[in-house]
Amino acid sequence: MTFANVGTLETQPGQREAVVAILTRSNPQLAEAGCLHYEVGTSDEKPDTVFVTELWTSAEAHQASLQLPSVRGAIAEAMPLLTGQMDGFQYEVAGSPLRD
Amino acid sequence: MTFANVGTLETQPGQREAVVAILTRSNPQLAEAGCLHYEVGTSDEKPDTVFVTELWTSAEAHQASLQLPSVRGAIAEAMPLLTGQMDGFQYEVAGSPLRD
Repeated sequence: MTFANVGTLETQPGQREAVVAILTRSNPQLAEAGCLHYEVGTSDEKPDTVFVTELWTSAEAHQASLQLPSVRGAIAEAMPLLTGQMDGFQYEVAGSPLRD
Repeated sequence: MTFANVGTLETQPGQREAVVAILTRSNPQLAEAGCLHYEVGTSDEKPDTVFVTELWTSAEAHQASLQLPSVRGAIAEAMPLLTGQMDGFQYEVAGSPLRD
């Protein structure tokens, strides 16, 4: 069942664009691992926050992706730029009004 | 710029599936109004919560969609089934590791 992982990452002051650059770096392994959608963004209202919305073929595919060397590398690279303050939620997709 | 609207809706006890049914009802007007992605779901960990992740061509397109009769009707239908407790965030998409 399609799995959604949605969250916010608080960055150290002035490090937002660096975190966005790490998270948006092209990574074909994500699609191979079952990632259907991965959108990274920002908001003027929260200048030290990075927003991430992910859709995966399953919760297990998402979990397994965290062990990919490319993903572990990105996490290790981003971690010093974050405060550790994170928020978000995970859910199973039930449907969409865009589909019949 | 692509706009993301992500949120949770707390439902009255036992009304979660009714709210999911309203929000996932096929609505071609959404795509015409600039909706790129609209995923509705649930989580076993929060039995009275409905999760929604939306992507729109712009914040303005999302705002304008709230005036569509079909959307106003769905909101009016869902409202009595909700507690009014909502959470979430909005952001502008900067990029994706799934794209070059």
